[in-house]
Amino acid sequence: MNYKMVLNVLGKAMLIEAALLLVPLLVGVSFGENTYLSFLIPMAGLFFIGVPLSCLKFRDKSIYAKEGFVIVALAWTVLSVVGSLPFMISGEIPNFFDAFFETASGFTTTGASALDSVEFMSKSIMFWRILTHWLGGMGVLVFILAVLPSGGAGLMYVFRAESPGPSSGKLVGKIKHTAQILYGIYVILTFLEAILLLVGGMSLYDAVLTAFSTAGTGGFGVHDGSIAYYNNVYFEMVVAAFMFLFGINFNIFYLLLTGNVLKALKSEELLVYVVMILTASIVIAVNILGSVENFWQALRYSFFQVNTVTSTTGFSTVDFAEWPALSKGILLCLTVIGASGGSTGGGMKVARLCILRRSAAANLKRMIYPRAYVSVKFEGKTLSRETERGVRTYFILYVAIVGICTLLLSLDPFADVFTNFSATLACISNVGPGVTKLIGPMASYSGYAWYSKLVLSFVMLAGRLEIFPMIFLLAPRTWRKR
Amino acid sequence: MNYKMVLNVLGKAMLIEAALLLVPLLVGVSFGENTYLSFLIPMAGLFFIGVPLSCLKFRDKSIYAKEGFVIVALAWTVLSVVGSLPFMISGEIPNFFDAFFETASGFTTTGASALDSVEFMSKSIMFWRILTHWLGGMGVLVFILAVLPSGGAGLMYVFRAESPGPSSGKLVGKIKHTAQILYGIYVILTFLEAILLLVGGMSLYDAVLTAFSTAGTGGFGVHDGSIAYYNNVYFEMVVAAFMFLFGINFNIFYLLLTGNVLKALKSEELLVYVVMILTASIVIAVNILGSVENFWQALRYSFFQVNTVTSTTGFSTVDFAEWPALSKGILLCLTVIGASGGSTGGGMKVARLCILRRSAAANLKRMIYPRAYVSVKFEGKTLSRETERGVRTYFILYVAIVGICTLLLSLDPFADVFTNFSATLACISNVGPGVTKLIGPMASYSGYAWYSKLVLSFVMLAGRLEIFPMIFLLAPRTWRKR
Repeated sequence: MNYKMVLNVLGKAMLIEAALLLVPLLVGVSFGENTYLSFLIPMAGLFFIGVPLSCLKFRDKSIYAKEGFVIVALAWTVLSVVGSLPFMISGEIPNFFDAFFETASGFTTTGASALDSVEFMSKSIMFWRILTHWLGGMGVLVFILAVLPSGGAGLMYVFRAESPGPSSGKLVGKIKHTAQILYGIYVILTFLEAILLLVGGMSLYDAVLTAFSTAGTGGFGVHDGSIAYYNNVYFEMVVAAFMFLFGINFNIFYLLLTGNVLKALKSEELLVYVVMILTASIVIAVNILGSVENFWQALRYSFFQVNTVTSTTGFSTVDFAEWPALSKGILLCLTVIGASGGSTGGGMKVARLCILRRSAAANLKRMIYPRAYVSVKFEGKTLSRETERGVRTYFILYVAIVGICTLLLSLDPFADVFTNFSATLACISNVGPGVTKLIGPMASYSGYAWYSKLVLSFVMLAGRLEIFPMIFLLAPRTWRKR
Repeated sequence: MNYKMVLNVLGKAMLIEAALLLVPLLVGVSFGENTYLSFLIPMAGLFFIGVPLSCLKFRDKSIYAKEGFVIVALAWTVLSVVGSLPFMISGEIPNFFDAFFETASGFTTTGASALDSVEFMSKSIMFWRILTHWLGGMGVLVFILAVLPSGGAGLMYVFRAESPGPSSGKLVGKIKHTAQILYGIYVILTFLEAILLLVGGMSLYDAVLTAFSTAGTGGFGVHDGSIAYYNNVYFEMVVAAFMFLFGINFNIFYLLLTGNVLKALKSEELLVYVVMILTASIVIAVNILGSVENFWQALRYSFFQVNTVTSTTGFSTVDFAEWPALSKGILLCLTVIGASGGSTGGGMKVARLCILRRSAAANLKRMIYPRAYVSVKFEGKTLSRETERGVRTYFILYVAIVGICTLLLSLDPFADVFTNFSATLACISNVGPGVTKLIGPMASYSGYAWYSKLVLSFVMLAGRLEIFPMIFLLAPRTWRKR
């Protein structure tokens, strides 16, 4: 393990976070709030630790996979710990475990809240709370790549370890350039959503934060009751449309921007993603027909909820914890599957689902024809053994983490085993709300004990970072000398 | 597809079932019951269809994997359909879907019942109900292999497709001889249990049926209330001990019988199986301490329940649907894991769990050292690519079936989504009772609609036959011409 380099990159990440804390500080000042110390103290701390670390000299400039994974896992953990300080110093979330849970939930774009109500929150603290979604959505370290002048090809491991989905496609070629294009698309889409919400009559503050929350596929709401607070069909449809967009692989937007419309539309993942959302919306609409006025209202609710879960945002307009078994079952399945690879959404990713399905089908064929050569193709290309292996290993670890963490949560007397199961799924997929009353869209995670919140924070980070980095961080073997 | 050969083997299986129906017929006669027609009619039917089929001549005597899978899947389905006739003709389970569910549950050694009460049942029908467990436990077709004179090396595919666990070990060499040894162990253990129960004062009829049910790791009880009916610590401990034994890989018994004690004790799977059962028993005992008199009573309940779930038998002495979240969570995990490979138990098998864990660990290593050669070992031997691939494919299909069938059950208004999830797990692992009140140890599956019972019957068969045969049976590709 190249400790010096790991610390150096960590130092840089801390300096970036210090700079980012300036934004909510300024928001606070502009609203005349008395919260500046809540931001200045962590900024000072980050500065005093970050500067010497980022000045550390290291000879060996090569980054291997192990360092990449460890950097990503450590950076996200440290940034979440420091990011919880404003909540604690301001006294708005005094308890560390709650504040850490909230920040991890923010950066990982989960959107699960440790708070029963957020209406008391000052504008600046709320801004920081939701800004973490926007920062986490594209990956804090991709941000570093885009902004910092240094870097080098070795940092590709960092990018690979952090980027969502099994394969980042051709874009990975020129890594710095790629990061800038992705950020460009991200900023433009966020801006568009904020404008559309403003046009509909939402306040500037709410519009910006709602757009941040949507773009990161986070789900923290500015108000109790999330999007239901506004009770406005236009807002719902704008948000639903952008949740849908942010759940699409950003490669598709890149292809569209560069005129490759046909190639973009031929994407297998896009097709599955769209068909999945439409089918689920219609089936759920029919399923909940009994409890609403008419089919269109049912469709309005189901389309929003399907998109909020599939994109792993977690906004809510209705309490789906009260829906019938089939609808809840579909939402649970969508929670596991999640958004497209290369999007800001979480979950197992549609691409992985497709690859798993094909991999299984290919293996069944290999059983029948043991001597035949059977390849697994996706998006027109034959998958490498590494990709196939990575997807299957991800899947095994995913199921193992869900099982183990459900058991760990069950040490807490707060909830029944199925609520714990639903909570684990909602956190590992970075969705937020679960499908049972206790942690449903109209409830929060406040009832869990501090140790459960720690477990769930770990699960959120594991899910966001595609599992491997957190596993390597915890493996004793990683820390042995070469 | 070699249709003639498939039909020929099916015909032989039908003749064997006709012969087996003689046993409950004689039981009925000896008890002076009026149920002989319930057995004679299906026997006559089986005979008239079975004889011409088993006389079918076929040139191509080679059995390939595809034929093996299809034969197994078809045979189990047909035997379950015909096996439900005595229940229907006697009028004791008049509805076809209930009777088919009960028979499939019997042959697959699941032990989930479609009946709220069984006390009304005549002795002969009850005997047939529980005899199916004993027949299914070792595999009806392994039975055919052991009994029929013909066969040939090609039938190994049938054996492989039906035998539990990822690898049948060295025993597979001489297939007919192997089947006879396995059956020998099976019969002796069953006999021992019946004797021990008789010694404790159980009636001959109850002792034989309880031994049948334990040996097959089935779980149908002779009385409502299962083993709790007797309220006898001695019976509980005998049954628990034998559930434990029948959950062990039969290769271990073979090694012990042939004097290879050291080799038997060195088995990795045995170690994990024992440690898992002891740990789970102690943790659950501590967890339920509040609701019982003392630690020993807690341990008595937990040890029995852990063994009943791990061996996938499904007997009950207490209503674990009322236990706290942690205990239920552990039982759910044990439901998924199940017994050892090569035992009569179901579930994913301890061996597969070990292989999945090692396979994932090996792949993580391959990520860090892409050019290193990393092999996966189990029981001291390096696993072939085929075995590793088979285990991973099994795992993917397992999760997919659980997800899809939970959704299908949710079309039924009977239960909530988590009950449906628990029911699917309990059926695919052939355990029987789930962990929620509606389908718990003190309830039954009677509340589900007929289509749900069909889905669950399929799930039981898929679980019992290690998934692949039922998938091939349903795949349209299987039925195309070569």
